[in-house]
Amino acid sequence: MTHTLVASATREIIIGFDQPFCVIGERINPTGRKKLAAEMQVGDFSTVETDVHAQVAAGATMLDVNAGVTAVDPNETEPPLMRQTLELVQSLTDLPISIDSSVPAALAAGLEVVKGRPLVNSVTGEEDRLEAILPLIKKYNVPVVAISNDESGISEDPDVRYEVAKKIVEHAADYGIPSHDIVVDPLVMPIGAMGTAGLQVFALVRRLREELKVNTTCGASNISFGLPHRHGINAAFLPMAIASGMTSAIMNPCRPAEMEAVHGANVLMGSDRDCSNWIRTYRDRVALQGTMPATLGGAQNVEIKPSGTGRRRGGRAARRG
Amino acid sequence: MTHTLVASATREIIIGFDQPFCVIGERINPTGRKKLAAEMQVGDFSTVETDVHAQVAAGATMLDVNAGVTAVDPNETEPPLMRQTLELVQSLTDLPISIDSSVPAALAAGLEVVKGRPLVNSVTGEEDRLEAILPLIKKYNVPVVAISNDESGISEDPDVRYEVAKKIVEHAADYGIPSHDIVVDPLVMPIGAMGTAGLQVFALVRRLREELKVNTTCGASNISFGLPHRHGINAAFLPMAIASGMTSAIMNPCRPAEMEAVHGANVLMGSDRDCSNWIRTYRDRVALQGTMPATLGGAQNVEIKPSGTGRRRGGRAARRG
Repeated sequence: MTHTLVASATREIIIGFDQPFCVIGERINPTGRKKLAAEMQVGDFSTVETDVHAQVAAGATMLDVNAGVTAVDPNETEPPLMRQTLELVQSLTDLPISIDSSVPAALAAGLEVVKGRPLVNSVTGEEDRLEAILPLIKKYNVPVVAISNDESGISEDPDVRYEVAKKIVEHAADYGIPSHDIVVDPLVMPIGAMGTAGLQVFALVRRLREELKVNTTCGASNISFGLPHRHGINAAFLPMAIASGMTSAIMNPCRPAEMEAVHGANVLMGSDRDCSNWIRTYRDRVALQGTMPATLGGAQNVEIKPSGTGRRRGGRAARRG
Repeated sequence: MTHTLVASATREIIIGFDQPFCVIGERINPTGRKKLAAEMQVGDFSTVETDVHAQVAAGATMLDVNAGVTAVDPNETEPPLMRQTLELVQSLTDLPISIDSSVPAALAAGLEVVKGRPLVNSVTGEEDRLEAILPLIKKYNVPVVAISNDESGISEDPDVRYEVAKKIVEHAADYGIPSHDIVVDPLVMPIGAMGTAGLQVFALVRRLREELKVNTTCGASNISFGLPHRHGINAAFLPMAIASGMTSAIMNPCRPAEMEAVHGANVLMGSDRDCSNWIRTYRDRVALQGTMPATLGGAQNVEIKPSGTGRRRGGRAARRG
């Protein structure tokens, strides 16, 4: 069984096929959040603080931290800001952290200050990225997100994306980094732009799990980009990805629809033992059942047994939930 | 490609792996609905009429019709009541019909009056059921739901349930009934009672699709029996079952959470071409996107191309939805 261990100074989390889905809170990220970027550039971390508390309260498994406030001189600005942001975040929560940057120097700065065993987000199949980041992964003995694109860009062909992921796993092995410390991002395309994006990622995730035996992650909400009521698409996508073998996602835990979908999927995958998290989280909504038609909870279901007894023949008792 | 054709006098529907999920409206069923049973017994079909209109309006693909008002003398009461109910239902809608009874005489009565090509619900692996129902299926050349239990009841072992389904398909073949006219119900157990119920049915549906190459159905809401906020469990279960290959379900189309999950799954399976049904159904909720954080729809996503260009390196542009 593939287990990827991430940890803070005081808390360990395992990402794995037999574990509850790992929700990596994406909010602490100034990319595309102009106001947050402006605040962080002048040393105002009030929004970061709010986002930490909100994501912890919403049930995030770990928190992604990105300090990409500008594309102008990231090598200068990102390392110190990443260090500063990480020190604040780990003073506010004991959730494990994902250090998120496309700037190697910022990842290195983050690795110097983060306690425990953070996830590094990310490396790609591009040679320069592999050579810059894999030595850091080896030096600090931490897991890394591997994005399945390379110099040629993002292939529309899932087989090519699989091969890129395989190449990254093999390069990592050359550095002595085990495959269970590689969390592959197969890259989720917007379904509105590519009608096969869903089938493609489900098949790819299954293959990455069965053949490469690695954990997987993705920027989940990308699937619904450009569509109306995208929470509904995200809430259907997450259970489908989880059923296909996806073990984590970088997402917004503060969105109830998506989190409910993840909690429901954990129940259905058997990773929410005795449905205890579900019952604890949603027991207050039990009243809703009062509004349900009798056919969706008829007394005959009390009869359900492997022996198939029930007032209706042919196992029909098991048919009416 | 496995295609199961169902039809009313004027409308054809195909159940298939490449088709939108077939939602079989379950409401017209007095089983466990005492008030409805009492009404139907005295010839009051006002609730049936209301349920027909509500399910059609909610977007059901076809309607299940059951006239099991009593367990006392079903062989006497069900056939005439089934005939009467079916004549009313097909006078109110042109949706294809599923004739639902555990009483062979009621199925026969229904087959005499239903126009088009109804689905017969159901037969099991029990010898007496096979011998009573398969000749009717052959005579009327209609598809049938095959429930994977037999004299020994409902096995907890999915391999046994697979073998029962296989046995039914083989018996049907002996009667000259093609496997594409057998829609297998693998039987969904309540996850609250059996923690492996989800994994079990997903694996079984995949196997039924890949090895037996049949369409599948289930009483979807049974999965959440006994749990709080069961709509949330159902809404996660349906996309997971669909991703596993399930092609239809007997469910309540009047539940928005479940129907939204089905519509979302159709988009993600690529069966909602150009997301047109999704956009038509949910475009009025586009305003919701205004409340989304910038990271869930940042401008950088406009840059997504197979070439992977974007302001962030390593295909990261595709990471932030």
